[in-house]
Amino acid sequence: MKDVAAYKAIFLEYLTEKIRLKEPETLYEPMLYMLNLGGKRLRPVLVMMAAEMFGTPHKKALDAALAIEIFHNFSLIHDDIMDDAPLRRNKATVHEKWDVNTAILSGDAMLINAYQLFENYEGETFKKLAQLFTKTAMQVCEGQQYDVDFETCEHVTIEEYLNMINFKTAVLVGAALKMGAIIANASEKNTKSIYEFGRLLGIAFQLQDDYLDVFGDPKTFGKQTGGDIIENKKTFLYLSAISQSSKKEARQLEHLYALEPNDPSEKITTIKHIFEHSGAAEATQKEIKKYTELAFNELDKIEMDAGHSKILKEFGENLMKRRV
Amino acid sequence: MKDVAAYKAIFLEYLTEKIRLKEPETLYEPMLYMLNLGGKRLRPVLVMMAAEMFGTPHKKALDAALAIEIFHNFSLIHDDIMDDAPLRRNKATVHEKWDVNTAILSGDAMLINAYQLFENYEGETFKKLAQLFTKTAMQVCEGQQYDVDFETCEHVTIEEYLNMINFKTAVLVGAALKMGAIIANASEKNTKSIYEFGRLLGIAFQLQDDYLDVFGDPKTFGKQTGGDIIENKKTFLYLSAISQSSKKEARQLEHLYALEPNDPSEKITTIKHIFEHSGAAEATQKEIKKYTELAFNELDKIEMDAGHSKILKEFGENLMKRRV
Repeated sequence: MKDVAAYKAIFLEYLTEKIRLKEPETLYEPMLYMLNLGGKRLRPVLVMMAAEMFGTPHKKALDAALAIEIFHNFSLIHDDIMDDAPLRRNKATVHEKWDVNTAILSGDAMLINAYQLFENYEGETFKKLAQLFTKTAMQVCEGQQYDVDFETCEHVTIEEYLNMINFKTAVLVGAALKMGAIIANASEKNTKSIYEFGRLLGIAFQLQDDYLDVFGDPKTFGKQTGGDIIENKKTFLYLSAISQSSKKEARQLEHLYALEPNDPSEKITTIKHIFEHSGAAEATQKEIKKYTELAFNELDKIEMDAGHSKILKEFGENLMKRRV
Repeated sequence: MKDVAAYKAIFLEYLTEKIRLKEPETLYEPMLYMLNLGGKRLRPVLVMMAAEMFGTPHKKALDAALAIEIFHNFSLIHDDIMDDAPLRRNKATVHEKWDVNTAILSGDAMLINAYQLFENYEGETFKKLAQLFTKTAMQVCEGQQYDVDFETCEHVTIEEYLNMINFKTAVLVGAALKMGAIIANASEKNTKSIYEFGRLLGIAFQLQDDYLDVFGDPKTFGKQTGGDIIENKKTFLYLSAISQSSKKEARQLEHLYALEPNDPSEKITTIKHIFEHSGAAEATQKEIKKYTELAFNELDKIEMDAGHSKILKEFGENLMKRRV
């Protein structure tokens, strides 16, 4: 088994080889642009790693890896329209560089293109991959819808929030690993465990993303902190703070989350203080730790050689330390 | 084999049974709304008819029929956003009734839902259906992109136009029939012929739609005529008129197609006259006849009992007479 950087390099080479400009160029150019914006390529790397850890050369996993990366980018293009986001990885989003119509249609074509790539697998493998992909894609849409709904929903429970990030983010990480296992024809038990490892790690990762958005160091986090607070996002931190505060404090927090000041710095400082003071920051840390441990427990259930286990554990640890 | 009305009734019953409101309702309600707006349900009826003509009960074709109807409605929802259309079948379009974000995401979920329905077919049938669906869906996207591109493209050839309507409209009609044939395990030769019958009839139908948009009787055509002229759509009529006119007349037509008068009635009258005078109206009629005959020729290649052949011929004839 190789390290993450090696898999990423192999994947990028395959991406460049396979994804070429075709007619009508107006449909495929935005697809190429988006796929070449960069990123960690975590999901495709996971497909390749899982295939190899279960004894199948990573080459066989490349089409599924590409499918999942194309799907992920389709969802980013459509989400960026919905969020009215001008930038993605410091470059113009597709609907900004072209227009909303182009972003809708190119996104649609990417979703279909992802399915096309599974056709390179035979018989049962094809059906298993397509079925897993369909189920996961539907959950991602449902997760995105819950996320949209929460914006205007007054009462969101912590359980509902965890369910939302599970669908919107975590199941795709689990599905990436499971695809590798399917391609390698791994046992049902191992396939289930590797899926759960990815899904639980995905939840931990998203919770940590929420945490770092408030308490992270902008230098290492890679973006300005406080974004979620400015957008009044009901994250785990916010929901914990509401549930752990006195009625009076909870009302103060709700009040602050109804404001959209021109200069948000005072609002950010006050809310940061509430998140710490209420114990929400600590509760979030605990929850991250809980899901990370649950993920590693799943990994321990899989019988594999120590080398593979070490690489996957390191991957998980580095991901949670944001070193990947 | 039953008649079209009977298949439609069976399909609508299945649609009502299968498509129910689920959580998150904000995602699935627009889907239900759109699927219940009505329409001729031609595509699902064709899936069922083809299955039965090749010896398999229509019941087995219901999931594929539903998949193709859901896909068709997905494409209408996204096209309506792109066209900024306020109405569909005299009711508010999804992006008007809800908003653009809802229309994008519900549409995405419908595309994925269509794939889900193929999972009810076993082994090779599943793969064949999914593969045909993916290929066709991609062509529909490409056709839509060409249609968008033609709006701002100065020179569109008749060949390019025919290629566009082939992708945007005709291949899905062919695919509907081919799905029925796949489900019934028809011979490769028959499967190919029934696909071609649908595709060629689809082209004839779209050309006739262009013709009726200018020369149709609003009472029987079902919508106000002149819409394509108001929108300066480069249809077969327009492109034929350009190619068959003198340079001077062609320039006049191009000039008129650059105008967007508040009262379009004079523009419509002048252009109607040019379409007739230049021979474009006649050329379009000829082309409709040509594609209809080509379609029926394909039907004649299929060995089937006379009763089935008669029903399909009648279907084609009624479709072209707009009696379906």
